[in-house]
Amino acid sequence: MRARGWGARGLQGRAGVSRIYDRVALIGLGLIASSMAHAMREKGLAGEIIGTARSPETRGVAEEIALCDRVTESAAEAVEGADLVVLATPVGVMGDVAREIGPHLAPGSTVTDVGSVKRSVVDAVSPHLPDGIHFIPGHPLAGTEHSGPRAGFAGLFLNRWCILLPPESADPAAVERLKALWHAMGANVDVMEPDHHDLVLAVTSHAPHLIAYTMVGVADDLRRVTDSEVIKYSAAGFRDFTRIAASDPTMWRDVFLMNKDATLEILGRFTEELFALQRAIRTGDGARLHDYFTRTRAIRRGIIEAGQDTAAPDFGRAAAAKEES
Amino acid sequence: MRARGWGARGLQGRAGVSRIYDRVALIGLGLIASSMAHAMREKGLAGEIIGTARSPETRGVAEEIALCDRVTESAAEAVEGADLVVLATPVGVMGDVAREIGPHLAPGSTVTDVGSVKRSVVDAVSPHLPDGIHFIPGHPLAGTEHSGPRAGFAGLFLNRWCILLPPESADPAAVERLKALWHAMGANVDVMEPDHHDLVLAVTSHAPHLIAYTMVGVADDLRRVTDSEVIKYSAAGFRDFTRIAASDPTMWRDVFLMNKDATLEILGRFTEELFALQRAIRTGDGARLHDYFTRTRAIRRGIIEAGQDTAAPDFGRAAAAKEES
Repeated sequence: MRARGWGARGLQGRAGVSRIYDRVALIGLGLIASSMAHAMREKGLAGEIIGTARSPETRGVAEEIALCDRVTESAAEAVEGADLVVLATPVGVMGDVAREIGPHLAPGSTVTDVGSVKRSVVDAVSPHLPDGIHFIPGHPLAGTEHSGPRAGFAGLFLNRWCILLPPESADPAAVERLKALWHAMGANVDVMEPDHHDLVLAVTSHAPHLIAYTMVGVADDLRRVTDSEVIKYSAAGFRDFTRIAASDPTMWRDVFLMNKDATLEILGRFTEELFALQRAIRTGDGARLHDYFTRTRAIRRGIIEAGQDTAAPDFGRAAAAKEES
Repeated sequence: MRARGWGARGLQGRAGVSRIYDRVALIGLGLIASSMAHAMREKGLAGEIIGTARSPETRGVAEEIALCDRVTESAAEAVEGADLVVLATPVGVMGDVAREIGPHLAPGSTVTDVGSVKRSVVDAVSPHLPDGIHFIPGHPLAGTEHSGPRAGFAGLFLNRWCILLPPESADPAAVERLKALWHAMGANVDVMEPDHHDLVLAVTSHAPHLIAYTMVGVADDLRRVTDSEVIKYSAAGFRDFTRIAASDPTMWRDVFLMNKDATLEILGRFTEELFALQRAIRTGDGARLHDYFTRTRAIRRGIIEAGQDTAAPDFGRAAAAKEES
């Protein structure tokens, strides 16, 4: 184990960080994995980066843009000799991937994932991993509406949160080493328990995504308003919904199916509240509406103060864009 | 009338534009009016800009930052001798403002507004305007989550749409002159009928705002997820909702109350569709979810192609921010 001391180094900041893992295997080469490849390479965090993907087309693109040091045809090959294995496929297939790679994992290696749902991933993956493997589930809260191996960029994780979900029995040194990797890629790291993670994300991500998908679908269906009108006048609020609703369909199908209970619970609360506001509109209860809107405004201020967005008028993400350019 | 020829000039682009109105009165000095003041001054579009607001505090700020050439205590004073009067108050009080200014309007002058709802504004304002006044309702589709006289900036309308809603009997020269003003401030101009406007905006703006307000309120209410968790992890989709839900409470209360029917109709469609997707999640119908999400993704591409957002990953408004800085 080389893990000792990585945590402290990671926490000290990003200066002077060097190789944290000797060989990292990325299973699935979408936005998150390709961004990790760029970030690890930029900072020299991995001795060697091996990548694989189920689709020959994705593997071809990865080779064409030299995303990894080596691209393998199977996940089993990719994990040979790797001290870190990252499951970066849609969450619905992570169990199958774990079954395939289980027998090929190097003793003492760490397996993590980047899925947006955690309880079902833990349940699907854990049974397939042999003793002596450190399974530390993870979830970087970063993304764009683009997907695939060309979508990645080194700065995706800068100032974003990565949640790690080590089991109680996890080896502290292995956890610190993985934390150090995320710190070195620019992220802040939090530790959480899987069920709580799934509830928090249902609120901050899964329910908002389903709602945005729904609203964009309604706009598309409405015969009396043309598509071109919807598109021309999208700056009036709808634009932000379309960005959310442009995210990867396969990833999001899996997220909703695998975080079913928490998502449905939050959507139930949402519908209840929406009905109350609809009733306030119908009955002309302006005071209730005004109070509600005043309260939600305060939450926005909290987010700006927490550094998760800027106060720049209307453009929210301009500061982040500058970090990348 | 000096209106002749302004339309053609506006359509030719922004070069060489000069004074379009001799005296413009801005009633209400929030984000839109203050942005108009900056834009008109930057391009020399108005000989003189008079401003007024109901609140002494707002008037004080306007004087402090020299937003207008002159700030008056009442709307009646502000419109004296103005050839363009812009109603830029919350839509709920536009009828009252019209009653106050009606007797003081200069013969042949144009009255417009910038409200987000049109049918009820037309019904509330028209009866108070004397013959010989050109009433041309308008709605610039531009905004930020900030409000008040300090929030304005000259570039707010750049490449945004402004919808004008002249009645059939409107004087073509007066309409062309107002169009020329909006073109000169950087906007594209469309003409529409009030009821259709209200339906289109219910889809692209009003329903999305109510939905965002609702989701942010739900997050705030949920006892098992702390506010700090919501705020920390907002980058995962929720952030865009909070920006929308931070808009001016008074303005939005009025919008919902005054575009009640169209908003409730769209929310009804939304709820129906949301229930169908919730059922797909509950029954594990992944194919239905995937199809739906694939369809909504295409709409996003249309918006990027229409120039109402950029394809920059995750940061949507970076290009617009650069235009301003």
